Amino acid sequence: MPESEGLSRRTLLRGTAGLGLATLGCQGLAQQSGATPPPPTAAPQGKKAGWAILGLGGYALGQIMPNFKECQRSRLVAVISGSPDKAKKVAGDYGLDAKNVYSYENLEAIKDNPDIDVVYVITPPGNHREFTVRSAQAGKHVCCEKPMAPTAKDCQAMIDACRKAGKLLQIGYRSRYEPHNIRAIEACRKGELGRLRSIVSDHGFNIPNGLWRTQRKLSGGGSMMDIGIYSLNAARYLAGEEPVEVYATIHNLPNDPRFKEVEDTVHFTLRFPSGVVANCSSGYSWAGMNRYHVIGERGTLEAEPATSYGGQRLTMRRRPVEVPPGNQFAAQMDHLSACILDGGQVLTPGEDGLQDIRIIEAIYESARIGRPVKL
Amino acid sequence: MPESEGLSRRTLLRGTAGLGLATLGCQGLAQQSGATPPPPTAAPQGKKAGWAILGLGGYALGQIMPNFKECQRSRLVAVISGSPDKAKKVAGDYGLDAKNVYSYENLEAIKDNPDIDVVYVITPPGNHREFTVRSAQAGKHVCCEKPMAPTAKDCQAMIDACRKAGKLLQIGYRSRYEPHNIRAIEACRKGELGRLRSIVSDHGFNIPNGLWRTQRKLSGGGSMMDIGIYSLNAARYLAGEEPVEVYATIHNLPNDPRFKEVEDTVHFTLRFPSGVVANCSSGYSWAGMNRYHVIGERGTLEAEPATSYGGQRLTMRRRPVEVPPGNQFAAQMDHLSACILDGGQVLTPGEDGLQDIRIIEAIYESARIGRPVKL
Repeated sequence: MPESEGLSRRTLLRGTAGLGLATLGCQGLAQQSGATPPPPTAAPQGKKAGWAILGLGGYALGQIMPNFKECQRSRLVAVISGSPDKAKKVAGDYGLDAKNVYSYENLEAIKDNPDIDVVYVITPPGNHREFTVRSAQAGKHVCCEKPMAPTAKDCQAMIDACRKAGKLLQIGYRSRYEPHNIRAIEACRKGELGRLRSIVSDHGFNIPNGLWRTQRKLSGGGSMMDIGIYSLNAARYLAGEEPVEVYATIHNLPNDPRFKEVEDTVHFTLRFPSGVVANCSSGYSWAGMNRYHVIGERGTLEAEPATSYGGQRLTMRRRPVEVPPGNQFAAQMDHLSACILDGGQVLTPGEDGLQDIRIIEAIYESARIGRPVKL
Repeated sequence: MPESEGLSRRTLLRGTAGLGLATLGCQGLAQQSGATPPPPTAAPQGKKAGWAILGLGGYALGQIMPNFKECQRSRLVAVISGSPDKAKKVAGDYGLDAKNVYSYENLEAIKDNPDIDVVYVITPPGNHREFTVRSAQAGKHVCCEKPMAPTAKDCQAMIDACRKAGKLLQIGYRSRYEPHNIRAIEACRKGELGRLRSIVSDHGFNIPNGLWRTQRKLSGGGSMMDIGIYSLNAARYLAGEEPVEVYATIHNLPNDPRFKEVEDTVHFTLRFPSGVVANCSSGYSWAGMNRYHVIGERGTLEAEPATSYGGQRLTMRRRPVEVPPGNQFAAQMDHLSACILDGGQVLTPGEDGLQDIRIIEAIYESARIGRPVKL
């Protein structure tokens, strides 16, 4: 699920409106490592994949649904909600066919609706497994928000269900479809900084009390699951390899009602096979922080904000980097649509989400035992 | 010893010339924690402490000696060198009395020279213990460059020698006398960021091959001793408390002649009693990096460059902070002079240097055993 950026949320949201569209094709992705962004391709005209939004919370309503108008390969066709009244109103707002409004109870009926190609699961993570599995079993491709699910076991069940149904599964790692992040990854992969030596990534904000995010059953965990996962995912896609060891500490502000069920601040260190080390952090009691930097032998890069809804800024060798504008939300959806319509591999598949959750489980374990954990 | 900032050295050096003078008094320092900067005081006119520079390398010639002209309480009176010709020339350049030129062999003769109050030891760290002990035994106060010495045992011997001789010992942690760092410490101590939650500090550069810094006998260690100590010292003075545990990894670029005797890249995590954690790093194979940031509940601060010779920039809550100009080199020397002339405790005493070396020993140990080490 998306982050709420505390003091800088408004700033971070600014800049998404009016951005042009970058469509990421998915042909040939099999030849690319998971860390390499796909090349942009001209979008074929014509058929669009039909999307159903499952879960009508703030992220769905505020970020995802408004961005279908920026999509070239994707169209919003249905909503699936636990709130009939809200579903009806939202469907009306977007001019959806009244028959394309579903509840969590009659979700399976989407099986017989040819308008729907994909279900985008945007509920709290505690429900991701159930809705992903049910959607796949109803014969639909699935996009599922991050974090993929509370446990690696859940993630594997989701991957298995989609595979068994012959359907694609994408995790909503929108930063992988965002131009500044794509440029940063390119710089790392092409050796523009020389050999990489160090990565630092810090994400946090001050969470209000009373949200589902601080209820373990719904959230699956605290800041690490929600916002620290950006630090983790970025470390992996910037390094371009998978960590072999993690060490972590957790500290909760004492007597703070927000941290009765979930963790507050996590610091974690990832050791990668090449020798690169990533010092990362995550917090729920912080003034807003959303940044990473990479230190190479011959240059550095820094992104701040790095993984926000908009307004990203990237510097390389201390100089601002201009990148072509692009709408990360539309690009993420159009990528899955292109994979469905044209064939190809998903850039951020279930395996990517599973890997983050595996590492988060190791982070929790390391903090518990006070020692590094091998991955 | 000071850092050479790789690609940004020239940039970092820029800005030191022409800075005004901030004299830090030392009255009442006993009531302040080691992390709190002393208040500026009006400098009494009149007597100045006499300084002898021991070791005429790049830092002495390029940074220290030229800055005596900015001092109000300190005057350059003597040089002590292993190179008679260089000593003679430098003494001539600075108009020193010919009798005030000493060699390492006849160092003990300073005992009978009333012009000299302090010896500033600016040799490679492998020689710091010998020259500090000999200077104290010759009845002089000592300022010793960082890192204090290769081992905690050496540091303790230096502290003991100065104590026995009844002389003050200052470690050359110039950043503690630098206005941006003083302002950052003040913000942390006064709660301007709310409760502190996280500190990140990264220092590194690309070291040329063939310097004494890559010879263990002279350097005492690699990047950690030379440049990473800025990350460590900053984490301590920003946190305002002492760490209770450290975890570290070390990685050397393979087959690199610079890293036959000393380490290249160190990542280390310090856990403080309040719950603050500092993610820090140090490198000798990096494009230049010299920064820290602090994340509090209510605000963040960032300094970059943070601990350079000049050109520091500080932001708080993302806004540039203007601080009164000040010459860190002159302020460091005038502080010790004020303690000598007026009485008072040294802000960066031998115990401060010893503490860094103790932690560095634990960093090396943690990296060796692959587990955190209690402090």
